[in-house]
Amino acid sequence: MDEKELSNLARDTAARLFGPPKKGEGVYAVWRDFDPELAKHISRFFVGRLYSRDVLSQKERELCAVGALTVQKFWDELHVHCHAALNVGASAQEVAEVIFQMATYGGVPCTVEGLKTLKKVLQERGQWQNQP
Amino acid sequence: MDEKELSNLARDTAARLFGPPKKGEGVYAVWRDFDPELAKHISRFFVGRLYSRDVLSQKERELCAVGALTVQKFWDELHVHCHAALNVGASAQEVAEVIFQMATYGGVPCTVEGLKTLKKVLQERGQWQNQP
Amino acid sequence: MDEKELSNLARDTAARLFGPPKKGEGVYAVWRDFDPELAKHISRFFVGRLYSRDVLSQKERELCAVGALTVQKFWDELHVHCHAALNVGASAQEVAEVIFQMATYGGVPCTVEGLKTLKKVLQERGQWQNQP
Amino acid sequence: MDEKELSNLARDTAARLFGPPKKGEGVYAVWRDFDPELAKHISRFFVGRLYSRDVLSQKERELCAVGALTVQKFWDELHVHCHAALNVGASAQEVAEVIFQMATYGGVPCTVEGLKTLKKVLQERGQWQNQP
Amino acid sequence: MDEKELSNLARDTAARLFGPPKKGEGVYAVWRDFDPELAKHISRFFVGRLYSRDVLSQKERELCAVGALTVQKFWDELHVHCHAALNVGASAQEVAEVIFQMATYGGVPCTVEGLKTLKKVLQERGQWQNQP
Amino acid sequence: MDEKELSNLARDTAARLFGPPKKGEGVYAVWRDFDPELAKHISRFFVGRLYSRDVLSQKERELCAVGALTVQKFWDELHVHCHAALNVGASAQEVAEVIFQMATYGGVPCTVEGLKTLKKVLQERGQWQNQP
Repeated sequence: MDEKELSNLARDTAARLFGPPKKGEGVYAVWRDFDPELAKHISRFFVGRLYSRDVLSQKERELCAVGALTVQKFWDELHVHCHAALNVGASAQEVAEVIFQMATYGGVPCTVEGLKTLKKVLQERGQWQNQP
Repeated sequence: MDEKELSNLARDTAARLFGPPKKGEGVYAVWRDFDPELAKHISRFFVGRLYSRDVLSQKERELCAVGALTVQKFWDELHVHCHAALNVGASAQEVAEVIFQMATYGGVPCTVEGLKTLKKVLQERGQWQNQP
Repeated sequence: MDEKELSNLARDTAARLFGPPKKGEGVYAVWRDFDPELAKHISRFFVGRLYSRDVLSQKERELCAVGALTVQKFWDELHVHCHAALNVGASAQEVAEVIFQMATYGGVPCTVEGLKTLKKVLQERGQWQNQP
Repeated sequence: MDEKELSNLARDTAARLFGPPKKGEGVYAVWRDFDPELAKHISRFFVGRLYSRDVLSQKERELCAVGALTVQKFWDELHVHCHAALNVGASAQEVAEVIFQMATYGGVPCTVEGLKTLKKVLQERGQWQNQP
Repeated sequence: MDEKELSNLARDTAARLFGPPKKGEGVYAVWRDFDPELAKHISRFFVGRLYSRDVLSQKERELCAVGALTVQKFWDELHVHCHAALNVGASAQEVAEVIFQMATYGGVPCTVEGLKTLKKVLQERGQWQNQP
Repeated sequence: MDEKELSNLARDTAARLFGPPKKGEGVYAVWRDFDPELAKHISRFFVGRLYSRDVLSQKERELCAVGALTVQKFWDELHVHCHAALNVGASAQEVAEVIFQMATYGGVPCTVEGLKTLKKVLQERGQWQNQP
């Protein structure tokens, strides 16, 4: 894979997970503000080399991301990956179930914060009224 | 669900994930050594009420457990859940892939330790020679 | 203990620690929004089976909660348990002392954030003016 | 309090918690190996200025230490403070109860590892046979 | 070193790192609100005994602080130490580089949050326009 | 930079930090066991793209690594980077000083474990007798 192909793969994978890029927003913009060259390599490695792989389905990968970010208390990044999980076909119930399960490995408070984050995501998508 | 049914559900779910119980070993034995009554309720809640649910497939649930335990650095418990993931149908490649992905959320060293744990599990199961 | 008794025990323990339930607020509401059945079992296990036990005094239990939540950086939950510690008889000095001690196990910044949380709690209770 | 008094206070507090000092062993020896002057100040601050205070009872302080070290996964230090908690009057059941409660804030695996540590401590003290 | 000299050393070291003290603000004010005597000893130990040492240059020490606070997710304290690192001669690029490197040990999300914190610090100092 | 140049840069940077590669050992071997292609990209990104940069001196970079790995409790990886720090010109005192400072951000127990790790490293290098 040459530089151009890798760059395209990273871009397409990011679009499938996170939607169309928004000018000057998101984590890529933060990296680029400080170092455009390094930003490019971070994106190509994590998105192009890692997230694009198909050993796992995109849904499995995103559910695992949701779980890990919940026990790590990375709420902003969890917000991004709750959207991504829903974008690649996980249901709201499935994402919530992963967050509930995380009480086992990260303690009950991370489940509480995680569910609040998911609730916000569902409200942003206009899907909250569908909850039981 | 009455007490008896809940107890059976916890026992059957544990058997599916962790194999037949081994007298005096495992996490249940640790809890019971200190408090048999509380041990029973911990097991019934986490295994009977939570792990037994079918919102996620057992394979999805175990892949999420593997990811969370890797970033939390719970190596003994990761060992248990690598076995469980393989027991419910995940392939060695899929489990490894989750652990690789965790570099993103927990840092590279947790991936290194996680893969060492998985390697030990595969050796115990006589499946290590199958690795690339 | 049957279902009804367990439910009452959880409710009474919660009331002693956290005060009368407020409609649609608090962690229980977050769980119930996503899964009322699981919410019930989480509450019954953690509050009914665990927090209600009398091996420790309620004050000792809450001081330990304050310490653990401080080193875990769970600020919202710490806020809840600072109130609970004061509700079951700990003094503001005692709660502060636990948070000071946590510098030893979790680093100085967790003590700083923990004390800020306690200060907010004391202000909410109209007890801040009593501080030295 | 002059230097001499502070030094005595640190020494007496350490003796009460951890027993008589053992030549060349323990955390103090590790610090002193690298920097005797700094070792002295670390000990005087944490033991002399902080642990010696009486806002909390020594038992309350040690139970909080046990809890925080469990969720922080500091197993060697937990080993030291399980001994200390028992030395200042906590019962084995009380120490175990704190570790059980930590499942709520640090996840179930920290309770498992914590109880294994306590079991070792009780065996070292010849108190294991007394467990239920 | 007597009490007076230690107090002066702590004050001068704090001034070099954090700038002139601001009445009623900062971490010292939080400690003092709860316990003026303990606040004095915390400050004297951490600032007077530890930060003042010259085994490392002040710049090396602050870069290490920036790194550790990033992986520990202590954002408010990172804010303070980004200022301190710049105060003792680190460039914005050097501070950013440490935060980028932390992706390796703490995961990518801590780098994202860390860079956002640094950006705020640079804006407060009127140095943001100089970024590439 | 083409693939070949990047590969060489990663190899030379790794050699400078970690010494000549040892067949079948180290973290690279763990990755390669599971996925040779991904192992290559991980190494090229983290070593070739990130560690090779010269915004920081190699010594500053390694001191920051030592600090972050200490508060993250990654003892095996800390062992590797204590060697690396000494390989690129840090003194034993400087490495110890970083680990001492980490008590501030990660708690005292991480300093204890970190110093034990450094002691082992110094013994492996035949440099322990030089300690005070």
